[in-house]
Amino acid sequence: MNSSQTSNPLPTIRDVEAAARRITGQAIETPLLEWPALNERVGGRVLVKPEQLQRTGSFKFRGAYNKLKRLIDEGGGKGGVVAYSSGNHAQGVAAAAQVLGLPAVIVMPADAPAIKLANTRSYGAEIVLYDRLKDNREAIAEDLAVRRNAAIVRPYDDPDIIAGQGTVGHEMAHQAKARGVNLDAALLPCGGGGLISGSTLALKAVWPDVAVYACEPAAFDDTRRSLLVHRRLPVEAGAQSICDGLMSPTPGELTFALNDRLLAGGIAVSDDEVLSAMGFAFRVMKLVVEPSGAVALAAILTGRFDCRDRKVGLVCSGGNVDPDLFSHALSRPG
Amino acid sequence: MNSSQTSNPLPTIRDVEAAARRITGQAIETPLLEWPALNERVGGRVLVKPEQLQRTGSFKFRGAYNKLKRLIDEGGGKGGVVAYSSGNHAQGVAAAAQVLGLPAVIVMPADAPAIKLANTRSYGAEIVLYDRLKDNREAIAEDLAVRRNAAIVRPYDDPDIIAGQGTVGHEMAHQAKARGVNLDAALLPCGGGGLISGSTLALKAVWPDVAVYACEPAAFDDTRRSLLVHRRLPVEAGAQSICDGLMSPTPGELTFALNDRLLAGGIAVSDDEVLSAMGFAFRVMKLVVEPSGAVALAAILTGRFDCRDRKVGLVCSGGNVDPDLFSHALSRPG
Repeated sequence: MNSSQTSNPLPTIRDVEAAARRITGQAIETPLLEWPALNERVGGRVLVKPEQLQRTGSFKFRGAYNKLKRLIDEGGGKGGVVAYSSGNHAQGVAAAAQVLGLPAVIVMPADAPAIKLANTRSYGAEIVLYDRLKDNREAIAEDLAVRRNAAIVRPYDDPDIIAGQGTVGHEMAHQAKARGVNLDAALLPCGGGGLISGSTLALKAVWPDVAVYACEPAAFDDTRRSLLVHRRLPVEAGAQSICDGLMSPTPGELTFALNDRLLAGGIAVSDDEVLSAMGFAFRVMKLVVEPSGAVALAAILTGRFDCRDRKVGLVCSGGNVDPDLFSHALSRPG
Repeated sequence: MNSSQTSNPLPTIRDVEAAARRITGQAIETPLLEWPALNERVGGRVLVKPEQLQRTGSFKFRGAYNKLKRLIDEGGGKGGVVAYSSGNHAQGVAAAAQVLGLPAVIVMPADAPAIKLANTRSYGAEIVLYDRLKDNREAIAEDLAVRRNAAIVRPYDDPDIIAGQGTVGHEMAHQAKARGVNLDAALLPCGGGGLISGSTLALKAVWPDVAVYACEPAAFDDTRRSLLVHRRLPVEAGAQSICDGLMSPTPGELTFALNDRLLAGGIAVSDDEVLSAMGFAFRVMKLVVEPSGAVALAAILTGRFDCRDRKVGLVCSGGNVDPDLFSHALSRPG
């Protein structure tokens, strides 16, 4: 991936601002929500950006649309696009390609949640399944891209994707300021790191001292551990989690270059804590949150991040969860 | 109830505007949301007011706070308040009383959803249970009020309650206008009629010709039938529905006086259609909607109201549903 670093310089706040203009009218400007009952529970003030209300049910549409629109504006994309994804990036790319009239092929794991497979198909994309344990999804995607003369849309290690996902933080900062709130801290889910790196560029442009934390499943806490030693560490082989959207094997190259410079640290939560957070979101917040989308919420509900007397921005990144798993989360004691 | 009509003139748009000022900073200004996938499904443009994001998980906090704050401002409320409710009004009154420092007693049916009983208790209210089939809840409440020198907070047939619930329509109108949308129609759940009568005052103040429809469960379509003959008709004895918040036996006196003058008509949906709408809200909208809160959504998803080429405001009025029933709704085919 060194070539991508050479050809792709790190995005800046200007790129996030350009992405915000580019996606206007296509992506939803999700609201910034607050619950007195949540504030009381954690002893601080929590402003939540609910990206499950975004087109396709997760933030991923933002980066995909930004990438594809720019590709078209620069005369590319004629052979369509190819992406690999466990599900939310798949839906984001498929929906953005549909809006822009591009053919899309998505390489997805055969064990992806059924709702993510069905939704990706519903946006008109062609799906190629692979075996998560045996196949190399990047090699499959590269091969498809060459054969079809299509452009690859990487899930996070791409400046246009990072800038697009960064519009989450950009909107959060401006919505918080509009109601007179200056954030002390922000917590975001972190898989490959696109959402948090881009969003932190935007948050720090408004509040240079805001402390931003990467929230991860305990078995995939590669960014948390990498931040401690300032180099990219992989997850353990065979790691498993219910957070299917956060199972990246290592921090991204571009995203970690930003995150290592910008983040205050990482917070790991267990799958059990994630299920409890999903139940809390159902009972109190009335929002459907998927496991990957609930890690930051789990971090504050468990007290792993102490919200007391702080103003905290929090991203719930998606809501694409199968009914069986959701019902399982609800069946647990509050 | 004739005495209440004599002592309580019908509220006007001025009362709704005063209520909007009174609840500012205490009630949540819920967002007005839109989903491309919902618009595509119904062939029109639907702007949704998600009142499950309101304090206590339903719109009822608005009317309760407006009523109690006015009571205190006028020197009343010293003996506390008494309310009767299947659950959402109970939570609204309990939470508003807690915020304002008043003791509250709530008369609730013994078979109310567990989440509504638990939440009402959590706001510090005393609960008195009654048998829905044998007891007269209004008599129990009257007796408690006399013995404790407390004020009764009726669920809908009260000008201050109507004006408070009307802030839903007031916000919807101003939020739609702010994004340049003029509504052709609006659909709201209707039980006793407080939410829809107050909201229609506000909607018609902005758009005199907007067509507003009362949405009801088929077994409790008293307002729909009453509108056809311009007089208040009761529901059939022994009627049942999963929409526990909309099981009022007859339209309210004050609310129907307004609704008969203002509404375009009523739409009835089956419990089965309500369950399907709850599943749609889970899959596509990522919102938790309780049965009573989903009747207007069911009306458009079934095509009973035709959204094609129309701009439609829609209220999802609450999200307080027990996990078992919610999981049941999710287990049905999409």
